[in-house]
Amino acid sequence: MDIPSFVTSILTSLAVFVVLVLVFTWLSRRPGNATVYYPSLLLRGLDPWEGRGRGTRSPVGWIRQAFTASEPDVVAAGGVDAAVYLVFLSSMFAILAFAGIVLLPVLLPIAGTDNALEDSTGRMPPNVTHFEILSLANIETFVLSELPDCNHRLWAFISAVYWVSFVTYFILWRSYKHVSNLRAAARSTSGVKPQEFAMLVRDVPIPPPDQTIKDSVDSYFRALHPDTFYKAMVVTDITKADKIFQEIEGHKRKIAHAEAVYAESKTANRSEGTRPTHKTGFLGLIGKKVDTIEYCNEQIKDFLPKLEDERKSALSEKQQRAAFVFFNSRAAAASASQTLHAQMFDEWTVAEAPEPREVIWANLPRKIYDRHTRQTVVYLIVFVTVAFYMIPITAISAVTTLEKLREKLPFLKVVVDQPFVKTVLQAYLPQIALIVFLAVLPTLLVSLSKSEGIPSQSHVVRAASGKYFYFIVFNVFIGYAIGSSLFSALEKVIKNPPGIFMTLATRLPGNATFFFTFVALRCFVGYGLELSRLVPLIIFHLKRKYQCKTEEEVRAAWVPGNLRYNTRVPNDMLIVTIVLCYSVITPLILPFGVAYFALGWLIAKNQVLRVYVPSYESNGRMWPHMHTRIIAALMIYQATMIGIISLKKFYYSTILAPLLVISLIFAHTCHARFYPAFAKTPLEVASQQLKETPNMSAIYTAYIPPCLKPDKLQDVQVFEDAQSRTTSRAPSF
Amino acid sequence: MDIPSFVTSILTSLAVFVVLVLVFTWLSRRPGNATVYYPSLLLRGLDPWEGRGRGTRSPVGWIRQAFTASEPDVVAAGGVDAAVYLVFLSSMFAILAFAGIVLLPVLLPIAGTDNALEDSTGRMPPNVTHFEILSLANIETFVLSELPDCNHRLWAFISAVYWVSFVTYFILWRSYKHVSNLRAAARSTSGVKPQEFAMLVRDVPIPPPDQTIKDSVDSYFRALHPDTFYKAMVVTDITKADKIFQEIEGHKRKIAHAEAVYAESKTANRSEGTRPTHKTGFLGLIGKKVDTIEYCNEQIKDFLPKLEDERKSALSEKQQRAAFVFFNSRAAAASASQTLHAQMFDEWTVAEAPEPREVIWANLPRKIYDRHTRQTVVYLIVFVTVAFYMIPITAISAVTTLEKLREKLPFLKVVVDQPFVKTVLQAYLPQIALIVFLAVLPTLLVSLSKSEGIPSQSHVVRAASGKYFYFIVFNVFIGYAIGSSLFSALEKVIKNPPGIFMTLATRLPGNATFFFTFVALRCFVGYGLELSRLVPLIIFHLKRKYQCKTEEEVRAAWVPGNLRYNTRVPNDMLIVTIVLCYSVITPLILPFGVAYFALGWLIAKNQVLRVYVPSYESNGRMWPHMHTRIIAALMIYQATMIGIISLKKFYYSTILAPLLVISLIFAHTCHARFYPAFAKTPLEVASQQLKETPNMSAIYTAYIPPCLKPDKLQDVQVFEDAQSRTTSRAPSF
Repeated sequence: MDIPSFVTSILTSLAVFVVLVLVFTWLSRRPGNATVYYPSLLLRGLDPWEGRGRGTRSPVGWIRQAFTASEPDVVAAGGVDAAVYLVFLSSMFAILAFAGIVLLPVLLPIAGTDNALEDSTGRMPPNVTHFEILSLANIETFVLSELPDCNHRLWAFISAVYWVSFVTYFILWRSYKHVSNLRAAARSTSGVKPQEFAMLVRDVPIPPPDQTIKDSVDSYFRALHPDTFYKAMVVTDITKADKIFQEIEGHKRKIAHAEAVYAESKTANRSEGTRPTHKTGFLGLIGKKVDTIEYCNEQIKDFLPKLEDERKSALSEKQQRAAFVFFNSRAAAASASQTLHAQMFDEWTVAEAPEPREVIWANLPRKIYDRHTRQTVVYLIVFVTVAFYMIPITAISAVTTLEKLREKLPFLKVVVDQPFVKTVLQAYLPQIALIVFLAVLPTLLVSLSKSEGIPSQSHVVRAASGKYFYFIVFNVFIGYAIGSSLFSALEKVIKNPPGIFMTLATRLPGNATFFFTFVALRCFVGYGLELSRLVPLIIFHLKRKYQCKTEEEVRAAWVPGNLRYNTRVPNDMLIVTIVLCYSVITPLILPFGVAYFALGWLIAKNQVLRVYVPSYESNGRMWPHMHTRIIAALMIYQATMIGIISLKKFYYSTILAPLLVISLIFAHTCHARFYPAFAKTPLEVASQQLKETPNMSAIYTAYIPPCLKPDKLQDVQVFEDAQSRTTSRAPSF
Repeated sequence: MDIPSFVTSILTSLAVFVVLVLVFTWLSRRPGNATVYYPSLLLRGLDPWEGRGRGTRSPVGWIRQAFTASEPDVVAAGGVDAAVYLVFLSSMFAILAFAGIVLLPVLLPIAGTDNALEDSTGRMPPNVTHFEILSLANIETFVLSELPDCNHRLWAFISAVYWVSFVTYFILWRSYKHVSNLRAAARSTSGVKPQEFAMLVRDVPIPPPDQTIKDSVDSYFRALHPDTFYKAMVVTDITKADKIFQEIEGHKRKIAHAEAVYAESKTANRSEGTRPTHKTGFLGLIGKKVDTIEYCNEQIKDFLPKLEDERKSALSEKQQRAAFVFFNSRAAAASASQTLHAQMFDEWTVAEAPEPREVIWANLPRKIYDRHTRQTVVYLIVFVTVAFYMIPITAISAVTTLEKLREKLPFLKVVVDQPFVKTVLQAYLPQIALIVFLAVLPTLLVSLSKSEGIPSQSHVVRAASGKYFYFIVFNVFIGYAIGSSLFSALEKVIKNPPGIFMTLATRLPGNATFFFTFVALRCFVGYGLELSRLVPLIIFHLKRKYQCKTEEEVRAAWVPGNLRYNTRVPNDMLIVTIVLCYSVITPLILPFGVAYFALGWLIAKNQVLRVYVPSYESNGRMWPHMHTRIIAALMIYQATMIGIISLKKFYYSTILAPLLVISLIFAHTCHARFYPAFAKTPLEVASQQLKETPNMSAIYTAYIPPCLKPDKLQDVQVFEDAQSRTTSRAPSF
């Protein structure tokens, strides 16, 4: 293998990063780009140039601002979820930094004093450049591999594994406590949140024929919670109503667009202007040509009564076997949602209500057995995906060397044979292939998770994130590391599961270069692109120039959306796994890991404060999920270390075995201590006094889906009555 | 090996059983034994000879009564727990009976048509007796072992495993549903039960210095449950008070006894009688001689003020960090006990309150971490016990053959060489050794479970039963079956866990005789002794003759106590495991299994109706525990079958593998569907109307431990005030 590719790769990444930061500094100071670089500030009604202006003018102002912003600032800007994500990044930073402080100064000299390193620094041959010292050959064979078998200096490595593990436990425990308090603080604020007064009921049994589902829900919960029950809202099948509603909204947007175009054409030389027209057929390419404004107005007129009919039928006839039940106090709702209601588990299952804006309506009426079946099927699909994506990954690592690529695609020779291109390609090719490859997956995983029957967006994100984590660790890390011998390895694993760690232990040191450059690429290029927002910037400017005519359209073009936790978290977890597993093999990877999380924290904080706008809030429910996976990564590391050190024929390696048990106990203790407050609402928290008397009618209205929402608030009563069959008669109680 | 021992053993068992039943029939008709054979009837105020008298007069009357008694009768006599135990026995009976109906007629001819059996029935050699056909040689080599390798008739055996499995699923599902309804019915009766209004709170945080624990509990729960909170009772350290209380009670009993003795001596020739005396020293053997009545009266006089002081100090100064909280409705208590209260899991943990009479006071104040640690330590001890009891068991199976015993203990020769003694000993020796050996364990396991920090007796029984099950399956079944090769087997198991089933598969057929006789012994002799109650009868008559002087003493001598689920259930489970595992190897064991559970059901029902008096009621919480273990037994069976059939070089044996997965899914589904209603109280059930207004003061008083119970009811307020420091001042709210 050629030596400079490793260093080239890291230096190129760094150069790209510097350029992107400069681009960011320059672009973000142009007022025209404010909507790309400060959308969160704009949406919260803050002026990015005023007040905090001094900071943003200075090229490094954003760094200062990110450092000075306090946690409450972050919560105010991006919600608890964003704050928890920053805690995650800073915890990872702390773990790797503490690990580095001890491992770098201790392990490097220990391994260095009796190996090739001494030769290269002491009596360096004249034809070796300085780059080569830090180069591939050194990295791959560095430190652990250089120690002779059964050397007592291996004790230092064993102690290092213990040090890293206990640092991780300590930091994770503190972080869990911190996040737990953060969540409690957010949940006990005095503001009224509709979801805190509601409970989700699923698996409503089929009512007797003279009752609607709404009536049976009402009577059931009024009987069980006579003092605290407020109202119930039955979930209805809104597919059709929503379709009509979307049609009307689409036509409204078209009218607004057409009017803007018309007004524009007027200001030109012809004062009467051109009335915009379009064709009614497929994609506006065929069919009758019509005046857009008139046509759309007519369409809306046609659709409105249909919507009204559909609303009525949805409310009364399309009731589903799920409902939201509202209580007149937070404590009552919290307590009710934690109480088993029915004797049979498959009836009247209750859960905390998700926020109205993140409810996935179509999933609510799914029955419990349907949910379990779907979950099983989805897990099976994910398992197959994880197992069979290994084939392409294996193919990638087989074509990894440029020579093979040249042989197979001879027409590339002209480009590839140029020395600079060759070096860059050789350094990046496998990594780029891998990254592109991984970009396909998240959307699939989100839609798979959605089809499990999960009731809320934030839960879907957590579920997708979990699946992505398995995928990424198995395929990218383990898959690439054990490389071409994957299938034989798989066969071994089935016969002897712990064997995977021995295989990993054998093969990890040989793949150090790949993962070094991978971490550097993710760190510098990934975060450079994230900070500079080049893609959203270009899309926004293109859209504004060629497409957007109205204010709303421009706004839709720059609204930034969520921090995408479902891909961010697993990717960060992959870096953690890689850096931990290599931390004792070649501690030189630690600075890169530290840099990744330091930069990650800084840039994520900047983006949270200025860019992303959360569309829902789960109050940090992502944390237990992250926590479990960090411990999983730690345990992969510990098991791999046992393998690596026992490969050195150092039989004290079993001294590391208790660490696996300690990790399990730690995970269990954390789960027992902190998790209940994430899964449920503690009564302590729900019983905090509210500043204002809750407006129950507004809380109820918040859960009406947009397509069913009455135009006037006084129609809410009509909405409610439409669900019940007993209202025309005497009330059932 | 000698052939007749197997048949002898079964015939002897049967003979013993018949004798014991005759003894029972004769003894139970003598009025003097009523307290031994009908204590439950007597305690419920029923006359065993009247009303139902006709039945009891007839020798088989008890059988008729046991058959005609309905489930509500059983619940009335022995509580839901007893009814659930009977459901367990009848389910096991049904499973084995259904299995037998198909397996016996199908498998026997299939295996018989091409093997040695044909020879023995068709052309029977003249020197073979009829007994020998059903004898050891046949049993051990019967059916499966006789089939040649890779025979396609093995399909019948595979189908048989499927049949047994699905019969088990079907019966278990029905039984779980039945038990679930039984529990719901019991819990929604309209009678007032104190535990349904109470909640157990543990891990109360240390209160501020100006508050007692009672005050802090009061204020915490009054704030969180303003409308439903009634009162709280803090658990106090009653060790010392209880000791004094027991001293006083002991002295009172002594006085009563002495007075009876004194009165007796008066009716003799001397009219003044002899005042009974005793010595005050160790065991009444040394020390000063005193007049018992005077001495005890003085002692009581001394102790009473001490008890009063101790009561006061216990209430105010020895408050522990646990409490019972009372609510004014069942629904409120049910809901509160299922609601997470504190943000931190290790504070204010809540649970449903156990019945007052089964509370283990000493365990209540244990902190959560203490509990976890204790649990871990206890599990470790149990693991060690299970692992190291294997050594004696192995020793037993090594001395199993009488020849070896004769060699080692030559002085036994005289006895052992007599042919009858020899046969009987040979048939019973290993079994008796095993049974005696097992009798040591339950007490240890109960006290171990108690030291885990479990708050209620019924839970301790469940925990001990679980441990005993592991012990009994691992040691008796697996341990004996893999016999002397145990340690080499153990070594293999550690290296390759599924290997244990291959080992079992190899060795099970060879041990058929042992388990045949074991089942027969348990069935006939065990149930014979159970029914005839010879041991309690003898103890009672001895005590009444030589020890009891007062009515209370006589009563204490015959009070029957609980059905001891902690040993009964695991022993039954062992029989299930044995019979299931042999059901396809030698279906002839099935009739014995069926007989075991049929007799078991009959005799247990008789004992429940007439003998045992439950001292607490867990409303069938034992069932989920039994259910899980039945499935565990089924899975041991399935795994062993895979091993046995693949030993026949029949590679379709993997067709059985899905059964293991199906069993897991079945267990999971049952758990998800039914378990919540066992672990928690459904609100539906708790919201049933009560017949009478609950007397809250009586409910509160029910939880005062006997040694603290005030003599008059109006003192309850004083009792409560003694716990609080704020009562002298203004109330804290």
